[in-house]
Amino acid sequence: MYVAIMGYGVVGSGVAEVLAKNHHSITKKSMQSELELKYILDIRDFPGDPNEKLMIKDFNIILNDDDVKVVVETMGGLHPAFEFVSACLKAGKSVVSSNKELVAAKGDELLKIAEEKNVNFLFEASVGGGIPIIRPLSQCLAANEIYEIYGILNGTTNFILTKMINEGLDFATVLRMAQENGYAEKDPTADIEGHDACRKICILASLIYGKHVYPDWVHTEGITKIDLADVEYAKNWGGVIKLIACAKEVDGEKLYAVVSPALVANTSQLSSVDDVFNAILVKGDATGDVVFYGRGAGKLPTASAIVADVIDCCRHTKEKKFFGWESCNENFVIDYLDAETSLYIRAKAEHPEDAVAEIQKTFGNVTLLSRKDAPAGEIAFVTDTDTERALRTKLDTLHILEPLSVLRIANC
Amino acid sequence: MYVAIMGYGVVGSGVAEVLAKNHHSITKKSMQSELELKYILDIRDFPGDPNEKLMIKDFNIILNDDDVKVVVETMGGLHPAFEFVSACLKAGKSVVSSNKELVAAKGDELLKIAEEKNVNFLFEASVGGGIPIIRPLSQCLAANEIYEIYGILNGTTNFILTKMINEGLDFATVLRMAQENGYAEKDPTADIEGHDACRKICILASLIYGKHVYPDWVHTEGITKIDLADVEYAKNWGGVIKLIACAKEVDGEKLYAVVSPALVANTSQLSSVDDVFNAILVKGDATGDVVFYGRGAGKLPTASAIVADVIDCCRHTKEKKFFGWESCNENFVIDYLDAETSLYIRAKAEHPEDAVAEIQKTFGNVTLLSRKDAPAGEIAFVTDTDTERALRTKLDTLHILEPLSVLRIANC
Repeated sequence: MYVAIMGYGVVGSGVAEVLAKNHHSITKKSMQSELELKYILDIRDFPGDPNEKLMIKDFNIILNDDDVKVVVETMGGLHPAFEFVSACLKAGKSVVSSNKELVAAKGDELLKIAEEKNVNFLFEASVGGGIPIIRPLSQCLAANEIYEIYGILNGTTNFILTKMINEGLDFATVLRMAQENGYAEKDPTADIEGHDACRKICILASLIYGKHVYPDWVHTEGITKIDLADVEYAKNWGGVIKLIACAKEVDGEKLYAVVSPALVANTSQLSSVDDVFNAILVKGDATGDVVFYGRGAGKLPTASAIVADVIDCCRHTKEKKFFGWESCNENFVIDYLDAETSLYIRAKAEHPEDAVAEIQKTFGNVTLLSRKDAPAGEIAFVTDTDTERALRTKLDTLHILEPLSVLRIANC
Repeated sequence: MYVAIMGYGVVGSGVAEVLAKNHHSITKKSMQSELELKYILDIRDFPGDPNEKLMIKDFNIILNDDDVKVVVETMGGLHPAFEFVSACLKAGKSVVSSNKELVAAKGDELLKIAEEKNVNFLFEASVGGGIPIIRPLSQCLAANEIYEIYGILNGTTNFILTKMINEGLDFATVLRMAQENGYAEKDPTADIEGHDACRKICILASLIYGKHVYPDWVHTEGITKIDLADVEYAKNWGGVIKLIACAKEVDGEKLYAVVSPALVANTSQLSSVDDVFNAILVKGDATGDVVFYGRGAGKLPTASAIVADVIDCCRHTKEKKFFGWESCNENFVIDYLDAETSLYIRAKAEHPEDAVAEIQKTFGNVTLLSRKDAPAGEIAFVTDTDTERALRTKLDTLHILEPLSVLRIANC
């Protein structure tokens, strides 16, 4: 059985490395007499690379080689990844991808082609890097109705928030550190604005609920506005601020999905997920809370997830793995303002005593928070649960307050 | 497709409940036009039970009904579970079991029959209840060489230790509470002496290393001797005491496996696994640390794992799932005294100052621990790493000390 890799960056070269390093056991597990890497497609040159002889620049060589049954796509980006992957599937090759942008934008189309051609399109590595999550969700928890899923799905933002929490450093400083360490890209937008986490929760939600959820439909907030004052209030409330990606079933037929920084209580298993680690909390009707924890990114963890998918493709050449989802329309996802939540609010008030009375009059029961050395006139509190629209409307009517920060409380 | 359940206790009735409750989605996922429970085998009567009509007392009815393709074994115990399961497999039926005693004692034999008959013998529920672990280990982490695994695998002992740690109650008191709550059996031996955790680590080790590891080969200590003094010293050391089941590859060809209470540092993900929850930490060469967390027991979590296996059997009627292990001999597991560890030691000394000097002379670098209101003459310390044999030999030579408690430090 022959394999090809498209895209020889960090992850693609990791796949080649894992295939070489654990070659014997991987071949055995794939139940093939031999499992061999035949081509590596990349537009760049890699002189002196141990795999130099396998390098090609023409995609058609892979497409037209009938001996290549499994193709690994680690190019990233939408184009030409989409064209290449769909061409491979149409040619009867199974494809394994780590490309969350591709799966989140085109998963329904690609899964449909795979089904028509009776081949596999697998993407365990697209969410949670080396953490097994796609397969456990689709197989091990198959007897459950999963009603909620909460994830810390982006290592870069979790590293930044952890440093802010543990070392009291501000966002800009930590972002610079993360860039210097290689934990953040030069252009960190996709991470810090929540887009990366959004793509991943879309993939998980699509898988669980059987309908393709597009990133555009999911309300997404990044962590750029998180202030050390919020970090401190969260601590005194009994929790931490994490970038939480959440998807919940609503009334059995609709979906609530939001990505945003949120307060997580210290009693939650997600509160102790630090640094670049990721974790996913799944709530099923039979199984209760299940948490998956591990490295959400990195060369070898991601490569190991890809190679596990390759092994699975080799073992099921005549059978499509069951999982997939249908296309659907935007109505499937509800307006996030219509969902119930409680909010953490930090604000400025010229007359704090009057403001507290007004807050209690407007919001009813609230939990007032304090912090050491708070500037005069700063007020922070956590509301009771109501629809987010109702809570924000109430806040708008409180002219005595100038809101500085509003964050959700994650119920995980 | 017809299913039968053998054993209508807590777990077996949970399987019937999950099959009924999520019937529509389970049937869909099983890719069968219908998935129906046909028989429930139990020697007891269940008058008024919703499934009363399915109850049978004669095993041969299941064995001889060719329409029953999948049999769920939730009887527990070795006999007649072994005879029934092997007969079903030989008759070409797939079997799903939650019976860790059976899998740990007879897994190699049953897997061999399953392979010969090209049917499936699956047992996701035998370890970690509702936590997906068997399938992720055999599939998702297949590209890894797994070199270490640490588990909190028994909910009863974890509940007891959590109460001792958080509420300062002694072992006997908490055991009584656990029995009153139904978290511990009337005869709690299998739990508190570590036998249950031992069976589970045997199953995980067999799966990972491909060779059957029998419970008899694994050095096992329970938690009955854990004193509140040890709990306090562990806290001051920066950790907690957990019943840890551990398996490690040694020199690429042998296995170290031990079940015992051990000190776990607060920085470990396993340190925050409280109450009846279980967790399994897997260290792979590519993926790094991965943790699986959830309810390790209970009716519905366990039932959900069983039903997921049933779904898998239905989807792979013509194909044996790849996993299994070979028989092997006792030499595979090394003497635990030959492995490296560091030890926590609590002891009594008539002349503490002299004793500290002697300890340092004998053990070299040690970390001395203290606690509030320690009785006069009590000494506690943590050694550096050496073989357990060397450390215990040194302790034996220290006649100035009367050892009260010796615990391993878990490096997880």
